[in-house]
Amino acid sequence: MEIRTPIPVSEAVSLVMEHAVRGSSEQIPLEESYGRFLAQDLVADHDVPPFDRSPYDGYAVRSVDTAGLSGDNRAAFQVVGEIGAGSVFEGEIGYMQAVRIMTGAKLPEGADAVVMLELTKPLAGSKVELKREMKPGENISFRGEDTRSGTVLAEKGSFITPGLSAPLAAFGYAEVPAAKKPVIGVLATGSELLNPDEPLEDGKIRNSNTYMLLSQIKRAGGVPLYLGKFSDDLDQCTEAVQHALAKVDVLLTTGGVSVGDYDYLPDIYKRIGASVLFNKIAMRPGSVTTVAEHRGKLLFGLSGNPSACFVGFELFVRPVIRFCCFSRRPHIRKEKAVLGSDFEKANPFTRFVRGTVVYEDGVIKAVPSGFDKSSAVSSLADANALIVLPGGTRGYKAGMKADILLLDDQKGSDRPWENTAPSFR
Amino acid sequence: MEIRTPIPVSEAVSLVMEHAVRGSSEQIPLEESYGRFLAQDLVADHDVPPFDRSPYDGYAVRSVDTAGLSGDNRAAFQVVGEIGAGSVFEGEIGYMQAVRIMTGAKLPEGADAVVMLELTKPLAGSKVELKREMKPGENISFRGEDTRSGTVLAEKGSFITPGLSAPLAAFGYAEVPAAKKPVIGVLATGSELLNPDEPLEDGKIRNSNTYMLLSQIKRAGGVPLYLGKFSDDLDQCTEAVQHALAKVDVLLTTGGVSVGDYDYLPDIYKRIGASVLFNKIAMRPGSVTTVAEHRGKLLFGLSGNPSACFVGFELFVRPVIRFCCFSRRPHIRKEKAVLGSDFEKANPFTRFVRGTVVYEDGVIKAVPSGFDKSSAVSSLADANALIVLPGGTRGYKAGMKADILLLDDQKGSDRPWENTAPSFR
Repeated sequence: MEIRTPIPVSEAVSLVMEHAVRGSSEQIPLEESYGRFLAQDLVADHDVPPFDRSPYDGYAVRSVDTAGLSGDNRAAFQVVGEIGAGSVFEGEIGYMQAVRIMTGAKLPEGADAVVMLELTKPLAGSKVELKREMKPGENISFRGEDTRSGTVLAEKGSFITPGLSAPLAAFGYAEVPAAKKPVIGVLATGSELLNPDEPLEDGKIRNSNTYMLLSQIKRAGGVPLYLGKFSDDLDQCTEAVQHALAKVDVLLTTGGVSVGDYDYLPDIYKRIGASVLFNKIAMRPGSVTTVAEHRGKLLFGLSGNPSACFVGFELFVRPVIRFCCFSRRPHIRKEKAVLGSDFEKANPFTRFVRGTVVYEDGVIKAVPSGFDKSSAVSSLADANALIVLPGGTRGYKAGMKADILLLDDQKGSDRPWENTAPSFR
Repeated sequence: MEIRTPIPVSEAVSLVMEHAVRGSSEQIPLEESYGRFLAQDLVADHDVPPFDRSPYDGYAVRSVDTAGLSGDNRAAFQVVGEIGAGSVFEGEIGYMQAVRIMTGAKLPEGADAVVMLELTKPLAGSKVELKREMKPGENISFRGEDTRSGTVLAEKGSFITPGLSAPLAAFGYAEVPAAKKPVIGVLATGSELLNPDEPLEDGKIRNSNTYMLLSQIKRAGGVPLYLGKFSDDLDQCTEAVQHALAKVDVLLTTGGVSVGDYDYLPDIYKRIGASVLFNKIAMRPGSVTTVAEHRGKLLFGLSGNPSACFVGFELFVRPVIRFCCFSRRPHIRKEKAVLGSDFEKANPFTRFVRGTVVYEDGVIKAVPSGFDKSSAVSSLADANALIVLPGGTRGYKAGMKADILLLDDQKGSDRPWENTAPSFR
């Protein structure tokens, strides 16, 4: 039997990233940009606001004319015009003149303050009564006070949030330069697998990995392409892999990666001439995760066990997709949390426990989300994080701090695997 | 001029939710279910695993036959069969017999332990040498150990994550009962608004609210429908609102909600016979947010200012969408965080500051994400939370705890507006 030497997670991730490639860019309609990744920096090409404007409905005046005004010393100003938002006042405000101005309208020439409508009283003969001294610049939204022309509002590779849609629109991106989504193929192997719509049979289980991966691919930013389910037959699987490679940017297979008699993936890699980067990682679950490279394309041999498959994807495939989408922090986001329960059993390998992160009065706490075996399906349902428990000779106690990896995050981490182990032992 | 009486945020939210309606359900393909909401509880209809199975490649044996075995006391077992995953061994294992078994395969009758392949040695004559005593049940994944039949794995209204796709597949949901997405119309008003593809003009700005709202609607779980941009003309706007109402479940307008001469929304509501729930809220930004109800449909008059519009959506529209999608926690998720900076200026109204949440060694910290005015566009780009600063006569200091509302969260809150104010003052 083949003896495999496990390598550390950090080394495995580095090996994978050596073969990750940047993708290409495409123009997409602004209204479809939510959830995509920016293909270039978003730079302000003009000041925001683009002109001095009024933040309120009221009257634009020259502050100098309001000197000394108070409730006991009111004055009548001549209303010489009205500016709706979007309109521009022609001419200049003069001595003791006011212009009725709406929220968002450009301040007229000569004016340097806006009196709120609530503090004014209309008088006969197109006049308005004011009763307060205004400071120069009072109630004005100044040109550029929000954003100066030239400011980088979001860097290349940023996830496009709803909040980013606003500046994209403001700076004229009717079409947004976005990272083209890489196509990630999924090929399931295993004679025990039934389709979700098939009735259960003795000895068989339904294929859950594929559907989980299709969703994981979407969350990571790729386009999933399901290429079918194959029995444990070497010739058939080899052909399937070869066909698949022509259609995808990255190929994921599930199952067949172990050292058993029915685990054909090592043979398939050999047959097609792919070079194996590694086939054993010092981690649980997913130690048999195998990654190979073939003519510039990465092939991920993920475990057939759901939890192992899930973890393998998030650690190794996600960063490849995010890197392709120009992210500068392609890895799953790593943060510290307080352990909410004991993990008594020591493990020589680094463990990634499906966990639920809860916030307790400003503190981040992580608890396991359920049954913890590589084959587990149920613990995935509630997991929003992976709890990282570095391998060693001792277990972990509730209250200790540990690294967590945030599954739903879109910001990412730069190099999450530096200093994982020593940081909390 | 109309005098409006501001109501507390909690009261405004309650008024809106009195008119929120539950949506309907539809069957969607499993592979398209990521990001949708479950329309019924996900209940396990069988045990997982569905049978006792082997977690490893190796040999299934009767543990009683291994009694006393060790490195110095090895024994040869007769290999009477081989079971690949998905196959079933016919017959029963007898005295000193072993069956070669693959990962995931069903345990043969009579066997109660699995010896890992690595600990065995093949011998001539279809025999295998074992050298370790096995405990009954050792290396077996027992039927139901992951999930018992009848377990509720996710409740109705849950956001379908990749991790939930796995149990959905395992329990045969080739089609998933999902909440039908409500259609949320967006109608922009304001003569100052240019389309994103139009060149800037003096006095005008590009329409950023609409595109921001389209993305916010998607994030919340609705289908956005952009109904166009209208000038500040009462007749035109009224007609547009009436047409829009026929096409949507909920209608959002931006702009025109203030008390200025060009703010037509109050008149439009009057003309179409909508009843106004409120038109002033004790909050900043977005105090002029107006909500009305017309024949069972909610009309949200959001501010024309980007940040005010953004906040108004998240507080009032999001829960209506989530409620429609069967969520039991439809409100934006509220948690506690430590303030990362001072907020010196007191405000009588509750403030919602666009913020960025960062994690520092297990502690959640919130800092403002930029320029803080209701008209701000730039601070939205980086915001992943809203920092809640209850109104009062004093400001807030860095290090104090405050409520935050998590923008990208999918879990939600039940009643986020209880006890907001007194919790940290």
